[in-house]
Amino acid sequence: MPIDRIAVGSHQEVYHPGALKAALAEFISTLIFVFAGQGSGMAFSKLSGDGATTPAGLIAAAVAHAFALFVAVSVAANISGGHVNPAVTFGAFVGGNITLFRGLLYWIAQLLGSTAACFLLKFSTGGLPTGTFGLSGISAWEALVLEIVMTFGLVYTVYATAVDPKKGSLGTIAPIAIGFIVGANILVGGAFDGASMNPAVSFGPALVSWSWESQWVYWVGPLIGGGLAGIIYEVLFISHTHEQLPTTDY
Amino acid sequence: MPIDRIAVGSHQEVYHPGALKAALAEFISTLIFVFAGQGSGMAFSKLSGDGATTPAGLIAAAVAHAFALFVAVSVAANISGGHVNPAVTFGAFVGGNITLFRGLLYWIAQLLGSTAACFLLKFSTGGLPTGTFGLSGISAWEALVLEIVMTFGLVYTVYATAVDPKKGSLGTIAPIAIGFIVGANILVGGAFDGASMNPAVSFGPALVSWSWESQWVYWVGPLIGGGLAGIIYEVLFISHTHEQLPTTDY
Amino acid sequence: MPIDRIAVGSHQEVYHPGALKAALAEFISTLIFVFAGQGSGMAFSKLSGDGATTPAGLIAAAVAHAFALFVAVSVAANISGGHVNPAVTFGAFVGGNITLFRGLLYWIAQLLGSTAACFLLKFSTGGLPTGTFGLSGISAWEALVLEIVMTFGLVYTVYATAVDPKKGSLGTIAPIAIGFIVGANILVGGAFDGASMNPAVSFGPALVSWSWESQWVYWVGPLIGGGLAGIIYEVLFISHTHEQLPTTDY
Amino acid sequence: MPIDRIAVGSHQEVYHPGALKAALAEFISTLIFVFAGQGSGMAFSKLSGDGATTPAGLIAAAVAHAFALFVAVSVAANISGGHVNPAVTFGAFVGGNITLFRGLLYWIAQLLGSTAACFLLKFSTGGLPTGTFGLSGISAWEALVLEIVMTFGLVYTVYATAVDPKKGSLGTIAPIAIGFIVGANILVGGAFDGASMNPAVSFGPALVSWSWESQWVYWVGPLIGGGLAGIIYEVLFISHTHEQLPTTDY
Repeated sequence: MPIDRIAVGSHQEVYHPGALKAALAEFISTLIFVFAGQGSGMAFSKLSGDGATTPAGLIAAAVAHAFALFVAVSVAANISGGHVNPAVTFGAFVGGNITLFRGLLYWIAQLLGSTAACFLLKFSTGGLPTGTFGLSGISAWEALVLEIVMTFGLVYTVYATAVDPKKGSLGTIAPIAIGFIVGANILVGGAFDGASMNPAVSFGPALVSWSWESQWVYWVGPLIGGGLAGIIYEVLFISHTHEQLPTTDY
Repeated sequence: MPIDRIAVGSHQEVYHPGALKAALAEFISTLIFVFAGQGSGMAFSKLSGDGATTPAGLIAAAVAHAFALFVAVSVAANISGGHVNPAVTFGAFVGGNITLFRGLLYWIAQLLGSTAACFLLKFSTGGLPTGTFGLSGISAWEALVLEIVMTFGLVYTVYATAVDPKKGSLGTIAPIAIGFIVGANILVGGAFDGASMNPAVSFGPALVSWSWESQWVYWVGPLIGGGLAGIIYEVLFISHTHEQLPTTDY
Repeated sequence: MPIDRIAVGSHQEVYHPGALKAALAEFISTLIFVFAGQGSGMAFSKLSGDGATTPAGLIAAAVAHAFALFVAVSVAANISGGHVNPAVTFGAFVGGNITLFRGLLYWIAQLLGSTAACFLLKFSTGGLPTGTFGLSGISAWEALVLEIVMTFGLVYTVYATAVDPKKGSLGTIAPIAIGFIVGANILVGGAFDGASMNPAVSFGPALVSWSWESQWVYWVGPLIGGGLAGIIYEVLFISHTHEQLPTTDY
Repeated sequence: MPIDRIAVGSHQEVYHPGALKAALAEFISTLIFVFAGQGSGMAFSKLSGDGATTPAGLIAAAVAHAFALFVAVSVAANISGGHVNPAVTFGAFVGGNITLFRGLLYWIAQLLGSTAACFLLKFSTGGLPTGTFGLSGISAWEALVLEIVMTFGLVYTVYATAVDPKKGSLGTIAPIAIGFIVGANILVGGAFDGASMNPAVSFGPALVSWSWESQWVYWVGPLIGGGLAGIIYEVLFISHTHEQLPTTDY
């Protein structure tokens, strides 16, 4: 079962959940993550009228996403691997760490979780509009490169701290690292394209407010960046090791 | 003793405290947490006149609660399980992880700890009023949904990182995750209803300033959200596993 | 050697340093901590003219102290126990976890480290004055209670996460908890009395700028709070356990 | 192989990568780190016109560098040791923990990673200039002392938490400590000289915008501070221990 490879932490008693249970964990984690991340933008829009495009709003967005993604990855880590992101699932797939069927199930769960979070936010804020992702001062191609670079960093972090069998004690702090690289990258990309790095994060708000402009950027960029990270890390730092070992009974 | 189940971290030599000692640990932890959380709002009110309803004040509230709850959970983890929150205790109860008697003792300790913190704050700030929780631009029912969703995320995090016997190395960072999901949610709900997620947090200031408007929202919402998280996590991710195992001597 | 009790983390190969080497580690750690904490206030005074008494300045002070104290405790943990604070050393002494001689040596090292940091700051900022601690809108007695409560929380955290033999995996995150409770408390007390919780932190700037007003508050408050935490935790949660167990072969 | 000494965490199955693979890991980590750190300054310049010289901008710079360096160190820890900084590599060299050849390879990789990050930032932000490091209100000699003190703290942290064989459970949180001491120091030095502590961090922007004024400060300061930390920690806290032990078969 290749999914075990992506589990965060090291456990004597490994837990093999059914795919549906894992998908449910992805749904709940993505809901928790998007509720905090997207919701913090709506809160700062209410307080300052501009949300994440003010200095304090951008810091709040970074902190909310960093903290909430850390938690969302943690709570799903032992059940589904804690992807919480179609680009992470795609990176796991191209590296050979998840099957196509389970990957598709995760995608559906992640998109539904993000959508549910946005509907709950819309209701519980008295009908405020969810923010949508868009470009600010840069072209779509520039935003594409931005999303590729940022998502490469995210999925490379997932591989180095959670997937790599040689991760050692890094596994203990893997969810923190995964959350915090997203927080750091939001402080860069948030001012230019919203810094999605996660198609589910941009899909939910687009669906709820039915606004699909530039949506392709937030799918193509993260999938390229995540896929590249998965292939590069797997080929350079995981697979080659195996070749150097006598592979008789391993 | 079901209380062992909720202890954070993994220990060879488990510590079975008397219920009174555990309640004392809850009292001290809730005092530490509310002193920092509530006090930071009073400090920002002094500096800016608006406290947590300004962008910087909301960030400060999120950081103060995240840091202080992380610590409050840590310091009580091995003695009482580190609930620091009647909704967490209720979630532990409905999941079958604490007895009714010990749960009631925890509730009393948590409410007393919060009240003591508010009196100490009132004195040591030269008589400034403690902030109270209230609704800003949303109805009571919308606030109820907000508290349910946020507290669900909190208690789900407690279950996944601290209660679940399969938590593995997640137990090491459980107190950080528990503190940080509250920090992230404050960046959402703080602008709308104060983001309590914890009846003790809203009870202390209400008692000290004798202002009970909307207080029911901060009890009903967290208890529903916490109870739901306890049932759902226990049924889906803990109990079902047991059924799959031969349960002869476990 | 009681000092082993206060070492952070769990180690098979315990290191018994000479007292002088431990004092040197305290000197370097206090220098690193005060340089960042005190220096961040000077930087924000330069940027905004008001330093830690503006909302953003108070957040910066909290983050700088939280991050730097976490690191300062970490880097000395295995050598001196990572006190970095005369009130922590006093709390360790009253709980019977450090000898009087070694405690005095630590005090001298901590005060020298803070003083060296302030002189280095004065030089490297082109002669800017170091900020000094003072009361803002509260009386000395109110500040005393504030310092007692905040330092109680700090030293209680040190005991629960680093000293308690039952700490288990909490030892791994002890330095983070110790740093972050100080960060949280600065968001409260920073607006009223500067939130020292540490006589060394207020001594260095007072010496360098020769301004001793209210200095006694920053010694008496932390020592009472730290001493109380040491006695209470030791008596209630460490010593009593031993009495309750049959001590034959455990 | 002395490089093993600087690996973060404790691992049964140690991984001996080729020097080129380790250099590639340094390249990718430095790219991730500089992209977030340098990019956050560019984002805040866009939002506020002043970037890191405003209070909110300085907090954002500290958080971005702290989070991203923590991650960059984590993801390279088991492959290259996670230096991400020529001053750390130099400190490892003078302490005898890396060979000259491998050290030079790391330097080249780190400088290339920073340069690549700056070119990617320039493109993906629509051609915005990368910020460069410069002095604000202090002389070059004062900046030199500032960089020496700050980098001493950084490399001392690397030694105490990641290199020291007695680090114990500190190794688990070493990358967080390494990232956060840089974040804390940026809150001090950011307002005076940009707080580099890392020649690669100042080299990339200088090359891309071809502006070399005061560049020597950001090489000489960090190398002196890092070298001092390596020698002092190695001599006082690592080597002396060995002398006290019977060194027959150790």
